[in-house]
Amino acid sequence: MPASPIRKLVPFADAAKTNGTTVYHLNIGQPDIKTPKVVQDAIHVAPIEIIAYSHSEGNLTYREGLATYYREKGIQVTSHEIMVTTGGSEALSFIMGAIMDPEDELIIPEPFYANYNGFSVANGVHVKAVTADIETGFALPSIEEFEKQIGPKTKAILICNPGNPTGYLYSQDELEQLRALAIKHDLYLIADEVYREFCYEGASHHSVMELEGMHNNAIMVDSVSKRYSMCGARIGCIVSRNSQLMAAIMRFAQARLSPPSLGQIAAEAALETPKEYFDEVIEEYVERRNVLVNGLNNIPGVRCPKPSGAFYCIAELPVNNADHFAEWLLSEFSFEGATVMLAPASGFYSTAGLGKREVRLAYVLNIESLEKSIQILDEALKVYPGRI
Amino acid sequence: MPASPIRKLVPFADAAKTNGTTVYHLNIGQPDIKTPKVVQDAIHVAPIEIIAYSHSEGNLTYREGLATYYREKGIQVTSHEIMVTTGGSEALSFIMGAIMDPEDELIIPEPFYANYNGFSVANGVHVKAVTADIETGFALPSIEEFEKQIGPKTKAILICNPGNPTGYLYSQDELEQLRALAIKHDLYLIADEVYREFCYEGASHHSVMELEGMHNNAIMVDSVSKRYSMCGARIGCIVSRNSQLMAAIMRFAQARLSPPSLGQIAAEAALETPKEYFDEVIEEYVERRNVLVNGLNNIPGVRCPKPSGAFYCIAELPVNNADHFAEWLLSEFSFEGATVMLAPASGFYSTAGLGKREVRLAYVLNIESLEKSIQILDEALKVYPGRI
Repeated sequence: MPASPIRKLVPFADAAKTNGTTVYHLNIGQPDIKTPKVVQDAIHVAPIEIIAYSHSEGNLTYREGLATYYREKGIQVTSHEIMVTTGGSEALSFIMGAIMDPEDELIIPEPFYANYNGFSVANGVHVKAVTADIETGFALPSIEEFEKQIGPKTKAILICNPGNPTGYLYSQDELEQLRALAIKHDLYLIADEVYREFCYEGASHHSVMELEGMHNNAIMVDSVSKRYSMCGARIGCIVSRNSQLMAAIMRFAQARLSPPSLGQIAAEAALETPKEYFDEVIEEYVERRNVLVNGLNNIPGVRCPKPSGAFYCIAELPVNNADHFAEWLLSEFSFEGATVMLAPASGFYSTAGLGKREVRLAYVLNIESLEKSIQILDEALKVYPGRI
Repeated sequence: MPASPIRKLVPFADAAKTNGTTVYHLNIGQPDIKTPKVVQDAIHVAPIEIIAYSHSEGNLTYREGLATYYREKGIQVTSHEIMVTTGGSEALSFIMGAIMDPEDELIIPEPFYANYNGFSVANGVHVKAVTADIETGFALPSIEEFEKQIGPKTKAILICNPGNPTGYLYSQDELEQLRALAIKHDLYLIADEVYREFCYEGASHHSVMELEGMHNNAIMVDSVSKRYSMCGARIGCIVSRNSQLMAAIMRFAQARLSPPSLGQIAAEAALETPKEYFDEVIEEYVERRNVLVNGLNNIPGVRCPKPSGAFYCIAELPVNNADHFAEWLLSEFSFEGATVMLAPASGFYSTAGLGKREVRLAYVLNIESLEKSIQILDEALKVYPGRI
């Protein structure tokens, strides 16, 4: 549907040619969905005679607008409980800096977004992984498994909901289990909810900020990057009702002066995005997910749980080493002049040796490219020397 | 000159009313100079159908444009030696992360930009200060004083040239002294050169990147914030010919995904800023500096060296405690319905007890506001109870 106002093929996010071979990039999370028109229009008339610093915590008008957006989602917060950051990345980095001392421990269900490791290492924090299982579609591991990892140095549990790289959407019951655990051990429960809007077939998203009795424990990370397909705006935020924590985070915010001003103009405008935009985007992602996941499961030996959110899935392949397979696809294989780029899942596991047969795929390409990608994978697995 | 294309009074950076009293903000470095028109025009027609991530190291076209800009300044670098960052703040943060281990030491001439402390603390780095003297206008302290601070944990020397908060512009001879010191002890020499364009009365800026034999040792920090009066763009960069160091910094860059895309569009457009813009800006700053510094030195008991660069100066006041004086100005004093806000200089010293009688003033206000500010300070010092 090339006439759609929201869909557009982006060359670098889709088939890119390398040495004459077309490469379908299933490995990265840069959506090809257009940024809402209200954002483009706002930037094109923005009053920018002086592109000045904003307040370190972000523009008040934007934070007030965000609070309204959250309240409409059932998350009761005020602008004082929101700190605007330079993307979700900075939000995570500030939170780590504010709640962790070197050698402290953070528990994360694996597989998890690989950059969580980077922010942890940068802050001297040790990640303790609790392994989720492909058998359950990467549902929350049992609370007993979490408790095995809790020690005197444990400060927080971090989840991504819905998840990158799994696409798994936590149920209300799973969140209640985490709530009880956080309260029992007085831990922070940090939820990266940047894919909130991407929940499929009527599935409801439950926010960490909606949990009872978590006034001081709940921390939400958010970002406009995926929600409005504006990753380059670099605007995220931290939401917490814990005023002492927010004061500590403010010190980090002041050291880097301010979040981007142009990005804040774009993000504030994005709050006016009509509901139809999301309806159309979600319809598109559901269709893409179905094409990709069904297509993968139809390839002999491939297993891929169908996720309820985000735009990623993890597939187990009939290969002995997915890292090597991904390399081989790029360097040795092509089918009708094309190949695919995959993200080996081992990079999303903290426990050595896990995920060796798994890959992450992002369904941020159009249907035609996804269908072509599945055909390529099917043909590749027929001839891959490391097939098991 | 209200008709000037580049000058405009910004309410929040200038006289802001608090409880009916007008407050002249001499305490902050947000210039009231307009962003170049080429930048505004570029943003208003920017092709932003999808505000996508840029490359982690920044857009190639921008890095190539930057390399050309530097070469025109006599700094021979290529785009591969430039990493685009989210402001100079992130540049400093990445450098600290890449070259320092916890407990390592960084030597900085004081007074220095207070956020250098923040980035150091965040990376577990200890700052060793070498004190510059108001008597010499805050010239480089003797190399012997630097050598006293060098130990096995010392990794780098950090200078700001021209300096915030002093406005001091290091001479070629001073830079050569630092070069010899860095080579002798194999230290990095990091120069924050964000005020490069603001050198007055024909004074030349000498970059750390122009020093001989510093291939692996020289690191430059830069930013568009002050150069083009676009602090809110949040675009800076790291320049180094040390490819191993740049590879280490790249890991930090990848963890935060990308610098702001809209800011990069603005920064790339800013490279086309006509020379007349800087001529006019510099003429304005020289005039402001002269009004402020001459005015301050005409107040009995005040001493203020005349800086050759940036848009700050440090003044010694006839008071026993500048922190208290600054507070008193805001809470107890007004003259003809107005007062001034100053930055006490103690915050720019690392050594306890130094700078107690000094304040930093930024001449980012128009001439009329500066003249009024001096009159207010003069009157205030006549009646301040802690005057000495």
